[in-house]
Amino acid sequence: MARGRRALEAIDGAAGQAVIDALADISPDFADYLFEFPFGDIYSRPGLARRDREVSTIAALAAMGTAQPQLKIHIAAGLNVGLSREEITEILMQMAVYAGFPAALNGLFAAKEVFASRDAEKIEARP
Amino acid sequence: MARGRRALEAIDGAAGQAVIDALADISPDFADYLFEFPFGDIYSRPGLARRDREVSTIAALAAMGTAQPQLKIHIAAGLNVGLSREEITEILMQMAVYAGFPAALNGLFAAKEVFASRDAEKIEARP
Amino acid sequence: MARGRRALEAIDGAAGQAVIDALADISPDFADYLFEFPFGDIYSRPGLARRDREVSTIAALAAMGTAQPQLKIHIAAGLNVGLSREEITEILMQMAVYAGFPAALNGLFAAKEVFASRDAEKIEARP
Amino acid sequence: MARGRRALEAIDGAAGQAVIDALADISPDFADYLFEFPFGDIYSRPGLARRDREVSTIAALAAMGTAQPQLKIHIAAGLNVGLSREEITEILMQMAVYAGFPAALNGLFAAKEVFASRDAEKIEARP
Amino acid sequence: MARGRRALEAIDGAAGQAVIDALADISPDFADYLFEFPFGDIYSRPGLARRDREVSTIAALAAMGTAQPQLKIHIAAGLNVGLSREEITEILMQMAVYAGFPAALNGLFAAKEVFASRDAEKIEARP
Amino acid sequence: MARGRRALEAIDGAAGQAVIDALADISPDFADYLFEFPFGDIYSRPGLARRDREVSTIAALAAMGTAQPQLKIHIAAGLNVGLSREEITEILMQMAVYAGFPAALNGLFAAKEVFASRDAEKIEARP
Repeated sequence: MARGRRALEAIDGAAGQAVIDALADISPDFADYLFEFPFGDIYSRPGLARRDREVSTIAALAAMGTAQPQLKIHIAAGLNVGLSREEITEILMQMAVYAGFPAALNGLFAAKEVFASRDAEKIEARP
Repeated sequence: MARGRRALEAIDGAAGQAVIDALADISPDFADYLFEFPFGDIYSRPGLARRDREVSTIAALAAMGTAQPQLKIHIAAGLNVGLSREEITEILMQMAVYAGFPAALNGLFAAKEVFASRDAEKIEARP
Repeated sequence: MARGRRALEAIDGAAGQAVIDALADISPDFADYLFEFPFGDIYSRPGLARRDREVSTIAALAAMGTAQPQLKIHIAAGLNVGLSREEITEILMQMAVYAGFPAALNGLFAAKEVFASRDAEKIEARP
Repeated sequence: MARGRRALEAIDGAAGQAVIDALADISPDFADYLFEFPFGDIYSRPGLARRDREVSTIAALAAMGTAQPQLKIHIAAGLNVGLSREEITEILMQMAVYAGFPAALNGLFAAKEVFASRDAEKIEARP
Repeated sequence: MARGRRALEAIDGAAGQAVIDALADISPDFADYLFEFPFGDIYSRPGLARRDREVSTIAALAAMGTAQPQLKIHIAAGLNVGLSREEITEILMQMAVYAGFPAALNGLFAAKEVFASRDAEKIEARP
Repeated sequence: MARGRRALEAIDGAAGQAVIDALADISPDFADYLFEFPFGDIYSRPGLARRDREVSTIAALAAMGTAQPQLKIHIAAGLNVGLSREEITEILMQMAVYAGFPAALNGLFAAKEVFASRDAEKIEARP
């Protein structure tokens, strides 16, 4: 679980912590499972690069179209592990082929929000 | 369209050609669109490596769970563009987190079929 | 329910009856609901032409991708209410835009089966 | 692409243009693909009436339930190509049969918004 | 239909009535079908306890992930027919296994809203 | 993990073991995760009766429509933990309301297979 906690922090940063906090009064055990299975078990496995894991997750969540909050968290996580904005945009565009144009469009608009919020943070962080 | 035809051949090989052939008597125009948009336009774009495109597609199709024939074609395509069996297996396992254990299991069983068929081809190809 | 029974017969013919028969030993009441709600209530409403109802159903089932047996029944039903093979093919191709190329391909291959089975019936019916 | 641009304008009007504009700073190429494939290729094909194309799209998007913004655009587009409010309502009600009552309800509430916004435009347009 | 009306009232209370009211100006017939089929036919059948019916519905809607408004209504309905908050939370957590962690998380956050709104009602109802 | 192994055995019996065996040559680690998270963590939690857990899973898998092999395993598991055939049939019929008639029909046909296979086992087991 400690391994999962470190993995979550490295990948999702503040957004991941916000999810954990929001679970505190409804299901704190579920937060433990999040540390344990996705982050402790899966993301810590050596067989696939962390960057490839985020490519997979962004593609999957955009294709499913039922998890916009999680898609935004993983677009941000993708930037954190070194994907460029262009690469993320390409992944989302490609989803038009496999899940239809609306899935791609809704993914692109999610990315637009995440990118804008990163730009705003940079401006605020200026001295 | 010529660019798409070359991309399809490089990525999907015989399996892609079989899809095109199967369309001949119901919708030959749709085969043209397959060359034109997914392969001619999307897969030929420079902003994302072909390997990353296959990671995205394998993840998306496994998560959706409604396209087993296409998932098998893209697991084979993933091998063609340099993904290892281990990497493909990791992508599919990770889908348990985002789309549930049945999606991951059905993806792993699709991979098992593709890997077995590759092994059989190798045995047949021996002198 | 009598109205639903007549509607089912007119639209789905033998394939619809086969579904009803298959329900006999597991849930005969569900067969009644099929007569009552989809066919008795919805398909008997005057506000939309029967042809438009089949266009809607073919599009929806192909886009969802989780109901291949029902999609085949409604492709056949579409032919029964006057849709041409070309029109059905166009509806299915269009689903590539909204639900992705695999959904369209799997729909087209379902149509191919239905059309082939119609052709076989015609040959058998020859004197 | 020019053909696609004209088709988009005729079908989706201002709402389609808003989508194109929103793509400008994240993925202008994707706007080109929207003109090229869905509108330039698919909607411009002669084998299915434009009215039937909108029937198909409204049904598919309501059944999928993952594309509310696009569903609203196509309900408006349906009115533009001659579908009556009653016909659109019937298509959406019918989705209860194939995708469940929640899909139908969420589709009907989307239609309610589009119809109300049309009524508001008419009132504003009065001299 | 009278039976359905009573079932709806017992299960969904004010939230169900709000849905019926919202349908009044777009499709009053669809409100009748809601009384007739889901509530008059299905929920009134003796073969499954009402509590089990709500367990089924909460699980299904959370797994599908396309019907958040209806999921909230049925979480409230679950409380009305005797499910504890803990039981509802467990059902939603379990959906992580079958439909992925995002489906479970989005279900848990829906439950959090419903539980908070119940707490607020209790505070307001104090003398 | 030992707890998960016992839970799996109690619930899924031979069918669960077959899944574990099938994973041996592609991803034995994934079999461990199946023991650990769904069965060791979730199914062993005290807050929801095992019977309710199977009601939830049958409903969810039937509604999703993308996991027929797993649905069959859980229909059998439902019988193992005390659900009657009638109760399972009612859960599946109810899915017509939330996920559409095709989802309910495909679920009922899955149940029909499981029930028939149970009947065949009983006949074979006769002295």
